[in-house]
Amino acid sequence: MRPNPTLKKLGFAPTDRVAIIHADDIGMCQAGLAAFADLIDFGLVSSGAVMVPCPWSLAAAAYCRAHPQADVGVHLTLTSEWETYRWGPISTRDPSSGLLDGEGCFYRTSEDVQAHADPAAVAVELRAQLDRALAAGIDVTHIDTHMGAVAHPKFIMGYVQLAMERRLPPMLPRLDEAGWRALNLDAETAAFAAQLTAQLEDQGLPLLDQITMLPLDQPNDRIALAKRAFDSLPAGLTHFIIHPAADTPELRAITPDAPSRIADYRAFTSPELRDYVRSVGIKVIGYRMLRDLMRGQ
Amino acid sequence: MRPNPTLKKLGFAPTDRVAIIHADDIGMCQAGLAAFADLIDFGLVSSGAVMVPCPWSLAAAAYCRAHPQADVGVHLTLTSEWETYRWGPISTRDPSSGLLDGEGCFYRTSEDVQAHADPAAVAVELRAQLDRALAAGIDVTHIDTHMGAVAHPKFIMGYVQLAMERRLPPMLPRLDEAGWRALNLDAETAAFAAQLTAQLEDQGLPLLDQITMLPLDQPNDRIALAKRAFDSLPAGLTHFIIHPAADTPELRAITPDAPSRIADYRAFTSPELRDYVRSVGIKVIGYRMLRDLMRGQ
Repeated sequence: MRPNPTLKKLGFAPTDRVAIIHADDIGMCQAGLAAFADLIDFGLVSSGAVMVPCPWSLAAAAYCRAHPQADVGVHLTLTSEWETYRWGPISTRDPSSGLLDGEGCFYRTSEDVQAHADPAAVAVELRAQLDRALAAGIDVTHIDTHMGAVAHPKFIMGYVQLAMERRLPPMLPRLDEAGWRALNLDAETAAFAAQLTAQLEDQGLPLLDQITMLPLDQPNDRIALAKRAFDSLPAGLTHFIIHPAADTPELRAITPDAPSRIADYRAFTSPELRDYVRSVGIKVIGYRMLRDLMRGQ
Repeated sequence: MRPNPTLKKLGFAPTDRVAIIHADDIGMCQAGLAAFADLIDFGLVSSGAVMVPCPWSLAAAAYCRAHPQADVGVHLTLTSEWETYRWGPISTRDPSSGLLDGEGCFYRTSEDVQAHADPAAVAVELRAQLDRALAAGIDVTHIDTHMGAVAHPKFIMGYVQLAMERRLPPMLPRLDEAGWRALNLDAETAAFAAQLTAQLEDQGLPLLDQITMLPLDQPNDRIALAKRAFDSLPAGLTHFIIHPAADTPELRAITPDAPSRIADYRAFTSPELRDYVRSVGIKVIGYRMLRDLMRGQ
């Protein structure tokens, strides 16, 4: 692969390790939003994304209106994964959309929504989520995908079109055919994905060299785990995902992975980790500069 | 008014003071559901009702499945009153329903939903909420109305029909024309309401002599406040409303009346208040015996 042209335009060297440190699932619950506010104040996390169909999304929008410098995108959501704390589409309650499970919520898994949903209904829903975030006053800096649900031949074009139309960087890696095959795409789909992303990049869409995430089943020694993850970053632009949340009864009632979420919150508000990231020379940026680049600003 | 025939059928004397001590807003948030579980264990609260469109309703249903003796109804919901923690209808996202405000949620006030909503859409939504509660495994003992939104000539018949069809006691007072006028109904509507409720009672619908509620703006000395409220109960059947919730960051982020909700939780898990209610001879019942009476069981 040639070096990432987006990083070159932003003045980075091909050997630079550039990371967007990204808080997922903002607006999913109160505990996540409370943590995000602290993390943005602290300054190590550089971006995050809101789940518009979730109960705390309007509170997240109120936070964004009060903190317009915060770098916040839309975490486009087509799944509702927890046992009893659940949500559904904002654009429809029509069962023929294929977006609803037997409880009237999104399916729990990406595989299920990919198997059942009508691509046209998905495109309408994605657009509705972005429009509602904008209407609520969020200065949306990017779009990404909850649980990778749009990463499927049925839905991916709707996601890419939304990014192009609205001039918003999508969370999307720039991979060659071998890279896409390594993500379990079959040969034909991998060839198509490699061609598509190369064309999109030529059209000025900022793309990522890597996407990585701290695991949700290893709450112990989280600072050490994060340090190792930063140590292993290759050169190029990495979307680095964490799932921070405050330790509250709400969070613990929602999800068995609460301990890892609480650990993310603590690690990414620790001076030790912030100093470490600086000391190893990782350059932390947000999505806003990618968006501004895409918009010629 | 003649004495309440429902109480007579249940073996109470006309002078008995009978109360359904009712926890509202179950499933609205985690803090309310956690409190309800403790309150049912404690035994002073005798009933509660779930807000089906709210984020914690499926968790409430899981609680009900695990505690089938708990007396739980459906708190039929057409409003979403808080600033940023909000919800909407489960049956539609169609703006022509008149159920949605500019944020895509229910209106914040009963007046707004009464002014804008299509009565047919309301009837569908009420039925959908009840059906979803039943499908989720709640042994629904009654129906009532969040913020009194159905208490309007446009919607009241849908509510009463649902109660009659499903053989469920509704939260509905048995008042004469003067009683209805005292609730601010105009002369014509009051006459209609008095006639309607008398007919419904003749058809075997259990009705209430009084509905009362502890205020949400007086968190201090809550046990004393509750004692005075019980002291002032007249003879007959009273639906006695509280809004209990645990003291959590979630609750405090949702509502400015968190202190009164927390105070309800503490008062109604206090041996002092439980002993007092017993000592003054108030007979506490749930809705299940009214439902069973209505069903001839």
